[in-house]
Amino acid sequence: MRLEILPVPGIGDVTEGDDLAALIATAAPWLRDGDVLVVTSKIVSKAEGRLVDVPADGPERLAARDEVLAAETARVVASRGATRIVQTHHGFVMASAGIDASNVDKTRLVLLPKDPDASARALRAALRERHGLDVAVIISDTMGRPWRNGLTDVALGVAGMPAIRDHRGEIDPYGNELQLTQMAVVDELAGAGELIKGKCDQVPVAVVRGYPGVARADHGEGARALVRDAALDLFSLGTAEATAAGLRAAATLADGPGPAPADPAAVERAIAAVAEVVAPDTVFTHVTDEEVRAGMVAAVPGWPERATGLILGAPPAPVDQADLVRFGADLQRLRTALAAEGISSALLPPPPGSPASAALAI
Amino acid sequence: MRLEILPVPGIGDVTEGDDLAALIATAAPWLRDGDVLVVTSKIVSKAEGRLVDVPADGPERLAARDEVLAAETARVVASRGATRIVQTHHGFVMASAGIDASNVDKTRLVLLPKDPDASARALRAALRERHGLDVAVIISDTMGRPWRNGLTDVALGVAGMPAIRDHRGEIDPYGNELQLTQMAVVDELAGAGELIKGKCDQVPVAVVRGYPGVARADHGEGARALVRDAALDLFSLGTAEATAAGLRAAATLADGPGPAPADPAAVERAIAAVAEVVAPDTVFTHVTDEEVRAGMVAAVPGWPERATGLILGAPPAPVDQADLVRFGADLQRLRTALAAEGISSALLPPPPGSPASAALAI
Repeated sequence: MRLEILPVPGIGDVTEGDDLAALIATAAPWLRDGDVLVVTSKIVSKAEGRLVDVPADGPERLAARDEVLAAETARVVASRGATRIVQTHHGFVMASAGIDASNVDKTRLVLLPKDPDASARALRAALRERHGLDVAVIISDTMGRPWRNGLTDVALGVAGMPAIRDHRGEIDPYGNELQLTQMAVVDELAGAGELIKGKCDQVPVAVVRGYPGVARADHGEGARALVRDAALDLFSLGTAEATAAGLRAAATLADGPGPAPADPAAVERAIAAVAEVVAPDTVFTHVTDEEVRAGMVAAVPGWPERATGLILGAPPAPVDQADLVRFGADLQRLRTALAAEGISSALLPPPPGSPASAALAI
Repeated sequence: MRLEILPVPGIGDVTEGDDLAALIATAAPWLRDGDVLVVTSKIVSKAEGRLVDVPADGPERLAARDEVLAAETARVVASRGATRIVQTHHGFVMASAGIDASNVDKTRLVLLPKDPDASARALRAALRERHGLDVAVIISDTMGRPWRNGLTDVALGVAGMPAIRDHRGEIDPYGNELQLTQMAVVDELAGAGELIKGKCDQVPVAVVRGYPGVARADHGEGARALVRDAALDLFSLGTAEATAAGLRAAATLADGPGPAPADPAAVERAIAAVAEVVAPDTVFTHVTDEEVRAGMVAAVPGWPERATGLILGAPPAPVDQADLVRFGADLQRLRTALAAEGISSALLPPPPGSPASAALAI
């Protein structure tokens, strides 16, 4: 096996309504069945008229650009300064929703294709029906990524081959089942194509010849298979955004104990976490002994049925009004520290006869 | 320009002390100056003896594996269930620090090369000095990434070419300066190599022929240039970890106003954010009028010099001890909501003669 990566020069400037299949077939009469075409998304967007007019410069341009970005954004993932990392309506997470101002007039912005998988299927079908070519088509674009400097080209859309090569079930020569099993081969093919395309769109299409994975029949499931559900992603939000979300969660902490018994060690960690910041001599006591607790809580008004633990809180004596307010604030600090340990709690009056000024049901 | 990607089969099983340069030169007598060698990191690790013995199975194996992982980990970036995404001592962010149990005996684990850039330089130097070949060397490994399913091969080390191709300053045909400027070409080359290597290490080396970026003289700065400083990364922590950090930050909120005047709109947002969760009829009043504030705060004991604002808080009447504790907890909620808006605050007794029970200096 041996791969070749070939440039397709001479396609020239693409404008709305152009027949990409004809342009490519004319520029690369040497195309063969089984070739993989890596097509820069920008010429697809231009052919599909995915452009918007904006002022050439000034604050009007920035305002117009922000409006376009908002329209292309499903949710903001992270931002710092002028940088906006967003999830597009396709599900891709990209800076500025992939909106591009390069290789286009200063008065226009290029948006991503509306449905890159559909664009890939349409181009593949046109090449097959009108030019007798059975190829795979990858629509590619340039993306940044966390943790590593530099950008790489990846696939926005694909037709004619699987997006992922699955090694599951393969056994290595030592009899181990493979751990890293699902390779995003269309991203690797898109990156390989970028190596000869360059950034100025004189060469908007590359051909990878010799890759065995090209289907002869169906279009395949598309690059949609590469989009990870944000709910399953460990990095669905920027660090600063998630930290702020934690602060907001603390501010609006629900008042109610969790159904599961709290790990005593976790409770002690939470008490220790706030020890330095609460008023000196404030005492928090985790009452874990069933019997004592049963006796104590029996008489606490509003004791929640599903509570499984109790923390007694006593402010430093003497207690005036300001001390009690401060004590309440310190109790809320403890409740937040408990929440950070995954323990929810409810603020209650102390059991009658206890030396405490308040209790937390956990 | 035209690239070829060629496999190097027949290298066979690599063990500690093997001369990789000799193995590769023998398996690929057709190598030429200017070729880019993409070498799977595992054979580099094996040749360098980066293996550890572990029990073949059972809890002992898991315990031993955890110990190895801890040793390879500079910091934990994210975890869920058994998954650990960590930053290695090299700076790479990878699942399980790149520790691999495939293509090796069940009683051994393969670690990443200690210094992949040094490994690449050594292999390149050996090929030049002992085999008269002037090539670039990329040490590659397989990594996952946020937001996209499937894995790709990227570069851990490189010698003989720049890790990044920089397009800065280039002007497109429309006269726009390019926006996406720094391409991680060695990652794209590593991915291109993976397309023909496969996962079972029968083909641990691929050759990319025809890439113009290969240096003839120095080794270059290495793949180290691809490691982004965590402080500059918008995704330096997992979402769950950052959210928990926000909760912990809320629990230990510093007591002191910020130096900068608070945006009144942000203060109103914070008050609104807690409106639903504080005791009914609790009143928070943002006193923004300079004169009033000056008169009020003059007499507040411990009023911080650099405070620039005041929030008065009054609990619902009638006020008993439990109300004051709850009120203090609600004040702390507000302080946390202010912190989420970037506003720090200090808890103070109310100005004498004011109807409030407490004040926040902001």
